[in-house]
Amino acid sequence: MEIVSSISRMQELSALARRDGRIIGFVPTMGYLHEGHLSLMRIARKKCDVLVVSIFVNPTQFGAGEDLAQYPRNIERDKKLCREEGVDVIFLPDEREMYPENYSTYVEVSGNITNVLCGYFRPGHFRGVATVVAKLLNIVQPHFAVFGQKDGQQLAVIRRMVRDLNYPVEIVGAPTVREPDGLAMSSRNEYLTPKERKVAPKIYESLMLAEKMIQSGIFDPEIVKDRMRRVIEEAKMFRIQYVEIVDAETLEPVKKIESPVMVAVAAFLGKARLIDNIVVNPR
Amino acid sequence: MEIVSSISRMQELSALARRDGRIIGFVPTMGYLHEGHLSLMRIARKKCDVLVVSIFVNPTQFGAGEDLAQYPRNIERDKKLCREEGVDVIFLPDEREMYPENYSTYVEVSGNITNVLCGYFRPGHFRGVATVVAKLLNIVQPHFAVFGQKDGQQLAVIRRMVRDLNYPVEIVGAPTVREPDGLAMSSRNEYLTPKERKVAPKIYESLMLAEKMIQSGIFDPEIVKDRMRRVIEEAKMFRIQYVEIVDAETLEPVKKIESPVMVAVAAFLGKARLIDNIVVNPR
Repeated sequence: MEIVSSISRMQELSALARRDGRIIGFVPTMGYLHEGHLSLMRIARKKCDVLVVSIFVNPTQFGAGEDLAQYPRNIERDKKLCREEGVDVIFLPDEREMYPENYSTYVEVSGNITNVLCGYFRPGHFRGVATVVAKLLNIVQPHFAVFGQKDGQQLAVIRRMVRDLNYPVEIVGAPTVREPDGLAMSSRNEYLTPKERKVAPKIYESLMLAEKMIQSGIFDPEIVKDRMRRVIEEAKMFRIQYVEIVDAETLEPVKKIESPVMVAVAAFLGKARLIDNIVVNPR
Repeated sequence: MEIVSSISRMQELSALARRDGRIIGFVPTMGYLHEGHLSLMRIARKKCDVLVVSIFVNPTQFGAGEDLAQYPRNIERDKKLCREEGVDVIFLPDEREMYPENYSTYVEVSGNITNVLCGYFRPGHFRGVATVVAKLLNIVQPHFAVFGQKDGQQLAVIRRMVRDLNYPVEIVGAPTVREPDGLAMSSRNEYLTPKERKVAPKIYESLMLAEKMIQSGIFDPEIVKDRMRRVIEEAKMFRIQYVEIVDAETLEPVKKIESPVMVAVAAFLGKARLIDNIVVNPR
């Protein structure tokens, strides 16, 4: 396993691999790896010759007052886990390498897809995400890249960016990995106190209820959302940011559930901002 | 020579060429080709195995009230000229292919580099340029791309974008090609009446004067700009937008000319908005 911190070296490795006809698979991460990340690596490993994982806590996707400084890091454990998963290259740049002096270019996906859900509560977040992913795709030059469905809006935004800018890459969405009690795996679960951790699965419980309601023929999103809120608020510990039901691809609000929708929740639980979603097909 | 209108076919051709170890050179244009474009093709032809020229009048780089609808077009003559220059592939997409339904991603180079000169008078112009070039680089996947120095700010913006987004491509700047009387070649010269055409070289005359002044030791940009304006205004037919002297790379204004500068002019002459520039090294 090679650890690469320079962009030019990474590009050189990728160019060599491509010249030899080798398939490059890519899993971008912010590190502090958990089973969710590892599942992405396993999906990629099966489909590629060269597996590249990037670890970079991208400052441009954090807003003022967000948790950039506290974001958990454990690079030695990350390296060990990558080695165990058969990763070939860890791309591990520092901030100066990614955002040099006079850095001034940003990729912006505009419109509803970035204005709703997390985009509404984290202005500038998806601009940072789209920018760093555009850069990473140019650096790693993968044939495909794997992103978790857990960050569902991120996945939709990246798909749109890749389509619009014509990146020659396949974007693979991968299922959310959960703790036994249903809590979606996230590096930010680290922030939870034991008491908070205990009620955290309420979010998943609300999503499961939504799925059941939709599949039993309740197609009015307001009714479903209302019941979901009540489930989450039972715990009296959450500060809900949103409970939404939107078109699974465009993230447009829906008035009636008649095609695949993303049911999405964001809520603070103590210091942790938790997000989760499921895609439900009413047919 | 193959004419390709579909993005996926172009990407396929480029992937095949790259797999065979062939060097792809790229000249993006808006068509209505003149000697300036042909000089870019000749520079590229010498350095590549596969020469791709794109012809696309990019709507996103035209502002409201600008000349998108009137922009001159002659695709049959363009094809003939490309054939004569040994072009291998013309990439000739239509607007729908480049900007499909729900298109929503833009690349923005922010800061001084896009706010001064043409950027000031054409808000959104360089966002359109950066976006379409980002797309074309992903579609054509060239090893290098050639841009004319005549659009000096465009060249600087593209260099910055390519550096910031880590595109694995070399940007080659090529000298401005001029008519015998000094007028920079441009598709927009087409708009000039015979009387306007006659005074058009005043712009180049002002640039030559600036070069002479700087090389004779006059390093105060205000003095140089003032003399330039007087040369252009002798003709009493121009409406000057700007006469500027800026750092050749960052396009920051300079108070004293002590490193390479771009001396740049934009002026309306009748319906035509003419731009021209030279880079002068005071040492």
